[in-house]
Amino acid sequence: MEKLYILKVGGNVIDEPALLQKFLKDFSEIPGYKILVHGGGKLATGLADKLGIEQTLVEGRRITDAATLDLVVMVYAGLVNKKIVAGLQALACNATGLCGADGNLVRAQKRHHPEIDFGFVGDTDAEGVNVEQLTTLLMKDQIPVICPVTHDGQGNLLNTNADTLACVIALAMKDLFQVGLYYCFEKSGVLQNPADATSCIPVLDKKTYHELKERNIISKGMIPKLDNAFQAAEAGISPLVLCHASAVSSIGTQITGTQLAVA
Amino acid sequence: MEKLYILKVGGNVIDEPALLQKFLKDFSEIPGYKILVHGGGKLATGLADKLGIEQTLVEGRRITDAATLDLVVMVYAGLVNKKIVAGLQALACNATGLCGADGNLVRAQKRHHPEIDFGFVGDTDAEGVNVEQLTTLLMKDQIPVICPVTHDGQGNLLNTNADTLACVIALAMKDLFQVGLYYCFEKSGVLQNPADATSCIPVLDKKTYHELKERNIISKGMIPKLDNAFQAAEAGISPLVLCHASAVSSIGTQITGTQLAVA
Repeated sequence: MEKLYILKVGGNVIDEPALLQKFLKDFSEIPGYKILVHGGGKLATGLADKLGIEQTLVEGRRITDAATLDLVVMVYAGLVNKKIVAGLQALACNATGLCGADGNLVRAQKRHHPEIDFGFVGDTDAEGVNVEQLTTLLMKDQIPVICPVTHDGQGNLLNTNADTLACVIALAMKDLFQVGLYYCFEKSGVLQNPADATSCIPVLDKKTYHELKERNIISKGMIPKLDNAFQAAEAGISPLVLCHASAVSSIGTQITGTQLAVA
Repeated sequence: MEKLYILKVGGNVIDEPALLQKFLKDFSEIPGYKILVHGGGKLATGLADKLGIEQTLVEGRRITDAATLDLVVMVYAGLVNKKIVAGLQALACNATGLCGADGNLVRAQKRHHPEIDFGFVGDTDAEGVNVEQLTTLLMKDQIPVICPVTHDGQGNLLNTNADTLACVIALAMKDLFQVGLYYCFEKSGVLQNPADATSCIPVLDKKTYHELKERNIISKGMIPKLDNAFQAAEAGISPLVLCHASAVSSIGTQITGTQLAVA
C-alpha cells in the first residue's frame, strides 16, 4: 500500500505567521500523498468580540449558534483555508482547499445531547468521509487542505472538531493507504513535566495516558486530542504522532494502541 | 463538442435567500456540464461597517486594502461559497466550492495602474485559467462553484471582479466545450426603459449598446457587466445571455457579437 500522510495543524500555529510558514514549507516537502487538516485559531473568537457576537460556553464547550457558525465558516473555510492554500501554491504544492460540503467530502450529524443544545456542531465518523472523492483528488496530485466545517446533506453547514476530523479521515482512508497521522501543535509532544519543554514522552500508551490524566499532568485541550489519537492508534493507524509544528520530522510523542511492557 | 453552461449569479441575488434558493434549484436541474460563478453581495460591505474597516472608493472603484481583502476572502470564499455548496448538495447537485488559489484554478496579476493603487485587486484573462483542472473536475461529475478570489502564485490572494471571472472562464473553456454564458441577476435583462421591467431587449448588439450608453439608458454597474459580455460574445461565446436569476430558462437579453441588421 502507498503511504498517506495526514497532518493536522492546530489553531495556535495558525495564529503565528512565521511558525505557520515554517510548517507549510515542511509540509510542502513531504513526498507522496498527503492531506492537511487545519483548525481555526483565535481569529473567530477575536472577530466575534469585535462584532459583539456573544460566545456561550456550556460545561467548557462552545455553543455554535447561527451567528457563530457564520463566523466559523468565514474564518475556517474562508480566510484560514485560502491563506494556507495560497501559501502552499507559492511553495509549488498543488493544494486545494475544501470543507466537508465540497464534493460531499465529509458528512456529519448535528449533535444531539439530552440536555445541551450545542447548535450547529457536527459529529462525524469514518463512514461520513467520502473516500472515493478524497482518493480521486490524491490520484490527480491534488493536496487536500481540509477545514473543520462539515455538512449534514440537508443544506446545513456544521462546526466540527478539527482533531476529530483528522482522526476520522485517517480511519476512513486506512484500508486504501498506509496512513500516518501527525498532530502538529505548539508543543514538542506530550510532556512528562508541563513546565519542561524537553520532557517529551517518546511513546505513550493508554495505560500511561490514564495515569497522567489522573495526576493532572495531561489536562484540558490535550484530553480530547489524545482521545482522538488513541481512537485512531487502536484502530491501527501508525505512526500516530504528536509533534511540534516547527519540527514535523522530529520524533515528538508516538501514540501507540499497544500497551507497552513495564520498563 | 459537449455543452458547458457557465452561470454567473450576482450579489443582489445572494442577498435574497428565497431568490437564491430558487436560482440554486433551477441551476441544479440544468443537465450536463455546468459551472457556477458567484459574486459577493452586500455582506462584505455590511461586515466592513460593523468592524469599522473604512471602504475607500477612488473614481467609484473600491480599493482592496489588506483588511478589506481578508473580509472579501471570508465572505466570498467562506460564507457565500460554502452556503451555496451546502445548498446545492442538499439538491443532489455535487458542488465543490473553489477560489482561484484552489488547485491553481485561476491565476491573476495584482492590478498596476499609473495613478491609483487598487491594493489587492487581481486582473486575469483566459490564460490565467487552469483549463485542465476545471475539465478534470467536470469529467469527475463535480460542479465547480467559483468565488471571485484569485491568487498570484506568490502566496497573495486577490479580489477579482466576478463578471470578468465568468467571462475569462468561458473564454478559456471554449475550445473544449460549446460554452453558453449566463449572467443571472435581479433584472429580466437589459431594459429599453429602466422603469419598465417588461421592456427587456431580446437581442443586443454592440452598436445598440453604445447608443443606449450614450442615451444613459445603460449606466453604472451594467457597463462593466456588458463590456465583459461583449468581450465573450465577440470571441464566439454563444448563447450569451443576461437574465433574471428567478427565470434562468427565460429569454432575457441575448448579447451578440454580430451586428444586427437595421430593423
